[in-house]
Amino acid sequence: MQLIDGKATAMAIKQEIAQRVKEIVANGGKQPHLAAILVGHDGGSETYVAAKVKACGECGFKSSLIRFDSDVTEEDLLNKVQELNDDPDVDGFIVQLPLPRHISEQKVIEAIDYRKDVDGFHPINVGRMAIGLPAFISATPRGILELLRRYNIETSGKKCVILGRSNIVGKPMAQLMMQKQFGDATVTVCHSRSKTLKEECQEADIIIAAIGQPGFVTADMVKEGATVIDVGTTRVPDATKKSGFRLSGDVKFDEVAPKCAYITPVPGGVGPMTICSLMQNTLLAGERAIYK
Amino acid sequence: MQLIDGKATAMAIKQEIAQRVKEIVANGGKQPHLAAILVGHDGGSETYVAAKVKACGECGFKSSLIRFDSDVTEEDLLNKVQELNDDPDVDGFIVQLPLPRHISEQKVIEAIDYRKDVDGFHPINVGRMAIGLPAFISATPRGILELLRRYNIETSGKKCVILGRSNIVGKPMAQLMMQKQFGDATVTVCHSRSKTLKEECQEADIIIAAIGQPGFVTADMVKEGATVIDVGTTRVPDATKKSGFRLSGDVKFDEVAPKCAYITPVPGGVGPMTICSLMQNTLLAGERAIYK
Repeated sequence: MQLIDGKATAMAIKQEIAQRVKEIVANGGKQPHLAAILVGHDGGSETYVAAKVKACGECGFKSSLIRFDSDVTEEDLLNKVQELNDDPDVDGFIVQLPLPRHISEQKVIEAIDYRKDVDGFHPINVGRMAIGLPAFISATPRGILELLRRYNIETSGKKCVILGRSNIVGKPMAQLMMQKQFGDATVTVCHSRSKTLKEECQEADIIIAAIGQPGFVTADMVKEGATVIDVGTTRVPDATKKSGFRLSGDVKFDEVAPKCAYITPVPGGVGPMTICSLMQNTLLAGERAIYK
Repeated sequence: MQLIDGKATAMAIKQEIAQRVKEIVANGGKQPHLAAILVGHDGGSETYVAAKVKACGECGFKSSLIRFDSDVTEEDLLNKVQELNDDPDVDGFIVQLPLPRHISEQKVIEAIDYRKDVDGFHPINVGRMAIGLPAFISATPRGILELLRRYNIETSGKKCVILGRSNIVGKPMAQLMMQKQFGDATVTVCHSRSKTLKEECQEADIIIAAIGQPGFVTADMVKEGATVIDVGTTRVPDATKKSGFRLSGDVKFDEVAPKCAYITPVPGGVGPMTICSLMQNTLLAGERAIYK
């Protein structure tokens, strides 16, 4: 069994990006610039945005953080989005989700210029990705593809079972894993209503679990030599931790790992790759590699 | 075994649409207007466009046909697209594919105002459909959903195997069949590289075949009581036909049909539903039911 080390992979990729940024700047090019809008003071969002700002530093990017109080009007937020769309110095930007209830997340997402939408949530990027055109691919699916590629895990023609059909993981993951240019796999998507979920998993060469149920995937569901990618990161109370909780994946790691060819741990597997994906998209945006 | 009669279903839907158009007009509303751009004189395209114009008549729609010679420049074509985008009388329009090689189909598709894109090929409609937002759904997947619904074929929690991963059938079909609001099924997409295609089919409650290989699906691949939807329409030489060819589906109908709960014939199954879907989208466009 080989552990897939997302932390080390993410670090290696950030170093590669930093190297590329040095080259760009040395050749008189512009330092890539990622901006982030943060509304309110949600603990999780603060942590994520801080980690993104830190990663920008590691990659040699310029970063800007724009804060609003949680009572900001939708109009003011949309005006700021427009301002960033129009700002030639900003190559890409994100609006950290979730937003307060009085603001339509979908409206805000659709207001972002898709050419700066490094989160890959705009319908144009979702649609272009689905039909195989160059597009910004959202962070988690992109990070998983990168792990599979860097660990030379064969996907073409293999049976890949995806657990969960969310818009940010399950659905895009399925679209990518079935395309010739990415996974080229036989893809099955299972969810809460699937009657044959267990049987599907038992036949899978690759399982990507993204349902948010701690310990859902057990040893009897996994065949010998499978690759298991665990996207779950549920906070479970744990009195032995300073924070009072620990992160739990969707996979019962201790019993599943011995059967696997490859498996991602939680934490330290898919998690560290997501911010790394955002950095890769920002580099692509800075280089105008997807859109002119 | 029950035969799914696409021809009769399409006719019933067109009558329902015609009834609705009468009501709209009686209430002082505007008659829906579908425009079609046809470039060159390809035999297949001529036939399709003529059928679409005829269907508009049956539905009580206004229709316009704009013709260009096959040497039209991309610029002139794009100008016409812009003109139709701006024409308030045109509710929806299509550019009949394929286009001559010197014109970028993708560029033309993306030039169409997505709010008038009744073919559902614009990335915004593809993307919105993928994430479950209201959108124009392309003709063939929409027609198949309609057949499943009208024949009360249970899809929720069932295993649905889709053969083929094309942008116009396999991929969107997968996205729709997995979504809670449409198929709510366990969806597997198989293609030329799939190693377990036969086994997947043998376990399927629903098979949707869209690979364009006549007679590909044989009796040994289908379980008792399955529903089989045949999207294939390959022209096979046939000296006994006036045209010199007959349409062949992806399914060996004679041997597969006796095992099925439901099956679509070719011709007369999915085929007649595609133009019908375009009419449904045109009605939605006329009523501003998806976009304001």
